[in-house]
Amino acid sequence: MALTNKSRTPNSASASRRHTLTRHVHLAAKKARRNTSATCSAMEVPISKDAAWKDLEEHVNAIEETHLRDLMTDEERVMSMIKESEGIVVDYSRQRVLPETMTKLLKLAEAAKLREKIDSMFSGEHINSTEDRAVLHVALRAPTTEKIVVDGKDVVPDVHEVLEKIKVFSERVRNGEWLGATGKPLTNVVCVGIGGSFLGPLFVHTAIETNQEAMDKAQGRELRFLANVDPVDVARALSGLDPETTLVVVVSKTFTTAETMLNARTVRTWITSALGQDAVAKHMVAVSTNLKLVKEFGIDPENAFAFWDWVGGRYSVCSAVGILPLALQYGYETTDLFLQGAWSIDKHFRDTPFDQNLPVLLGMIAVWNVSFLHCPARAILPYCQALAKLAPHIQQVSMESNGKGVAIDGTTLDFETGEIDFGEPGTNGQHSFYQLIHQGRVIPCDFIGTIKSQQSVYLKGEVVSNHDELMCNFFAQADALAQGKSATDLRAENVPDALIPHKTFTGNRPSSSILLPELNAYTTGQILALYEHRVAVQGFVWGLNSFDQWGVELGKVLASQIRKQMNEARTKGRLMSSQDGHNASTTYLLNKYLSGKAQLKYADAKDVFPCDIIASEDCKVPSD
Amino acid sequence: MALTNKSRTPNSASASRRHTLTRHVHLAAKKARRNTSATCSAMEVPISKDAAWKDLEEHVNAIEETHLRDLMTDEERVMSMIKESEGIVVDYSRQRVLPETMTKLLKLAEAAKLREKIDSMFSGEHINSTEDRAVLHVALRAPTTEKIVVDGKDVVPDVHEVLEKIKVFSERVRNGEWLGATGKPLTNVVCVGIGGSFLGPLFVHTAIETNQEAMDKAQGRELRFLANVDPVDVARALSGLDPETTLVVVVSKTFTTAETMLNARTVRTWITSALGQDAVAKHMVAVSTNLKLVKEFGIDPENAFAFWDWVGGRYSVCSAVGILPLALQYGYETTDLFLQGAWSIDKHFRDTPFDQNLPVLLGMIAVWNVSFLHCPARAILPYCQALAKLAPHIQQVSMESNGKGVAIDGTTLDFETGEIDFGEPGTNGQHSFYQLIHQGRVIPCDFIGTIKSQQSVYLKGEVVSNHDELMCNFFAQADALAQGKSATDLRAENVPDALIPHKTFTGNRPSSSILLPELNAYTTGQILALYEHRVAVQGFVWGLNSFDQWGVELGKVLASQIRKQMNEARTKGRLMSSQDGHNASTTYLLNKYLSGKAQLKYADAKDVFPCDIIASEDCKVPSD
Repeated sequence: MALTNKSRTPNSASASRRHTLTRHVHLAAKKARRNTSATCSAMEVPISKDAAWKDLEEHVNAIEETHLRDLMTDEERVMSMIKESEGIVVDYSRQRVLPETMTKLLKLAEAAKLREKIDSMFSGEHINSTEDRAVLHVALRAPTTEKIVVDGKDVVPDVHEVLEKIKVFSERVRNGEWLGATGKPLTNVVCVGIGGSFLGPLFVHTAIETNQEAMDKAQGRELRFLANVDPVDVARALSGLDPETTLVVVVSKTFTTAETMLNARTVRTWITSALGQDAVAKHMVAVSTNLKLVKEFGIDPENAFAFWDWVGGRYSVCSAVGILPLALQYGYETTDLFLQGAWSIDKHFRDTPFDQNLPVLLGMIAVWNVSFLHCPARAILPYCQALAKLAPHIQQVSMESNGKGVAIDGTTLDFETGEIDFGEPGTNGQHSFYQLIHQGRVIPCDFIGTIKSQQSVYLKGEVVSNHDELMCNFFAQADALAQGKSATDLRAENVPDALIPHKTFTGNRPSSSILLPELNAYTTGQILALYEHRVAVQGFVWGLNSFDQWGVELGKVLASQIRKQMNEARTKGRLMSSQDGHNASTTYLLNKYLSGKAQLKYADAKDVFPCDIIASEDCKVPSD
Repeated sequence: MALTNKSRTPNSASASRRHTLTRHVHLAAKKARRNTSATCSAMEVPISKDAAWKDLEEHVNAIEETHLRDLMTDEERVMSMIKESEGIVVDYSRQRVLPETMTKLLKLAEAAKLREKIDSMFSGEHINSTEDRAVLHVALRAPTTEKIVVDGKDVVPDVHEVLEKIKVFSERVRNGEWLGATGKPLTNVVCVGIGGSFLGPLFVHTAIETNQEAMDKAQGRELRFLANVDPVDVARALSGLDPETTLVVVVSKTFTTAETMLNARTVRTWITSALGQDAVAKHMVAVSTNLKLVKEFGIDPENAFAFWDWVGGRYSVCSAVGILPLALQYGYETTDLFLQGAWSIDKHFRDTPFDQNLPVLLGMIAVWNVSFLHCPARAILPYCQALAKLAPHIQQVSMESNGKGVAIDGTTLDFETGEIDFGEPGTNGQHSFYQLIHQGRVIPCDFIGTIKSQQSVYLKGEVVSNHDELMCNFFAQADALAQGKSATDLRAENVPDALIPHKTFTGNRPSSSILLPELNAYTTGQILALYEHRVAVQGFVWGLNSFDQWGVELGKVLASQIRKQMNEARTKGRLMSSQDGHNASTTYLLNKYLSGKAQLKYADAKDVFPCDIIASEDCKVPSD
């Protein structure tokens, strides 16, 4: 958080700005409360002023007296911190918590009205008050027996109507009933979307693509993603594909996302260049709510799959955004398992007492690590290559949700919130950034492992199977971080004195261990929901709105201004001047770019596409 | 840093541990100095005690009085902070620095003996004192006209001898002179290696695979990497490949890296199962220094490509580690360009005065952000999809190099060092974690863009080309972070009061902009060297050893112990007990794992490989 960071160093200039801001914020908050649900507007006092928060602040002293090396010898404490639900084992005994810390954290949850907020979410209240929307990604995985009402309407039937449509469509494509313009089956799918329309589906695809059941269903099919507006990404996404056998899914809620729509137009040209204008209807479908723009684009609105304003982009993988492409690749039954897995955790989250509630416990520990122990980051370390895209997806879910500087009522937060999430699969990370985690900054880690491997290998004569080898590291790393290694230990091993400080491990570094039976569509859904709800718990307790994202707006506005100027500069062959309103740096860099572009030879430009695309960026620019 | 982190909250227990540690460290340091070079051992006083450091600490107050919104209006300041060398523009005007900040930072560089340390590195001194080794990745790209002496021997001829060997071998493979066991050309290469033997080569491969010249040379060839010991990674790496046309490059300096060697044995079995034992000589080569183990493995030592103990793993991409696979895929001339690019920055780093020296300036700004402005992280944000693997590679280079808690002489560091590096390509990141960067924590960003795209696309009727669209965001984001948007601005736009705090951007968030003419093999080498040396500058100034990695040892030792126990448990069908020496958590989790494995049916196990691999993990385990 900017302000927290500043508060560590004197900053009178920004302090005065902050005061000015705070005053306006209070006025704004008063008005805002009129529009928000009872639960949210009730939070007039920041949670950091609550006795439960103060109590935890004081409790930090007690924790600083402890070391995980000692805490891990207390078997009763350890066993009280291993929870198993829905087949998932969550072990937080290596967090820097005592049993009483957990009690205090659950009191904080109570003070923050966590129960009420969870209930408000599940009951369709407009808890995303700045956008006046409900937050109901849980409804996307609710079975037909559930009833979830938004603005007086049960949305569960709507959800299942779209699911049924996906089921029918994906089966038609998969069984060859739906064919391309030249009569060939569509075996390849390219999903065009960015952010939540990309990272979630990519995470699930990567998680199950080597799961044998999913592999069998994906036989002969290929699923790719195109997210970045960089034409290099277009080239990579389409490389080796044949338009005749490719179905394109354009994913954009509003059908106006700049990157997605330019990429969609680019891919449309790739299709129409090869197959003619009419091919669009057969080769392109949409996931969107804006049927008007879908039609204008040339896609039959019949082939648009809906979702709703109560589904945030980063929480949308369980809507048509993820289910359509995944059903096309792996069959509808696979996506159904995925939704069932997510729902198993939804129910658990909704119905389980907090002291046994996995997302609540993990979320409260995250609040503890971030706001009380001042850890700015969290590492997500799956010992499972198939979870390679978990960290990038959760990075989005978490950092976009909780990377906020103000409370939901607009008051400035005076404590640290949203952490930096990053990670790579183990053991790869061990040979990369673990050095820092062991001997540098303290970064709480999530270790994730599975009992069964998706692809078992055992070589004759080896000590253990390949998956055992992997998992030995899963078990070892958590203890290495917690226990450390002292100078005394090293001396006992006759380590030369000069090396002792370098080979000493302070230990006392927190982690959680999460063990799953195996990684399949069902457990992938569970992991997703576990992390989604954990993020929500953090946001609910911090009192911010985890479901808006105003922080992405300013960059869009500035980019849009520059786009106009760049068009003018490129078509008129002029450079930027101080009159264009940019600072000296932007003017200089833009001119460096524009004059560099002007010098590019037409012959230098590379064709990605045939005929009616002018494959040169400088075609309009005079030689300068 | 652990200790810095602790210092923010009272911690008497760990403070007393720290004092005990510090005393031993001082004794150790005295002895250590006997073994270290003059430059390193001279550093008895930590840099934080130097007047130049204190001066900067005081200067923070002056900076806190400023806002980038104002600083960016000072054209003279801005233009003094845009540097261009070797074709690369580096603009640090959006860092929170004044001209005098830079002067003070260069004084700090002087106090830290940065000049002498750089010279020591280039002149082959054993600056990696804890391992008693020189640090000479720069020698890997030195032309034959250079002379770099290590322990009395010029290593440049050795480097070029190996390069020549790579050239000859890669040409033989590429032109079909070297054939597989069944007489087929080897068109596919699988590199087995982890950490530095993986991330660096993957970064370069990803950077140039859509560069047209490189693409042309890679026609009909495929390069893949196998890093993780997870058998899922094996399955993915080998999926669709034919052993008859596949060449495997095993990369391990010592030929003992656990993951790499198990993966190498796994892939060897994949080859010998299909083609017989003798095929190994034709289908497997090694990059290693341990010829004895290479031979024992079954690889002809003639087909081993050497490197040296003065090449650290994370700095090894310019040795045979990277050059062999890249030359096989893209031809030797391409790798030669890559080395030339890196050398252009090496020379620049060695010979350019600090006030114009790009790695020095970037490194000193990083020291400022981390140690004085207390930013714990840095985001690497290339507006270039081909640089998608830059952040993971630099994450390794930086966090493994500078994620240390002690100085090179063993004294405990009392300030923040090594930052968390992470990033994704823009614009993808904008739709993911940028929310937090704009309105949450302050994270200094590196924006990287190119003037020419590797794959230009312009669609008729569009306002700008696809690459222009991408680059509009490159220009816009840096200004959005720096300028922000105030409540006053928002009110002028008639934003409802309730939303003003949510839509306010505090701004004053630092970034650097790096603009390259284009991304090709040469500029990829430049970027690599720029980041490598920047990391070295940070480590030199902080006074730590950026070239060892003792922090990875403890986890390895513990994993090795667990491996033995797991073998015993799996073969004897027993579970762990408290007598195995683990805490209650590890005992519980291990038993959960072991008993879960025992329940797996043989029929459940999936075959990745044929015949003599028993493709079941539970084959040795009784039904228990």
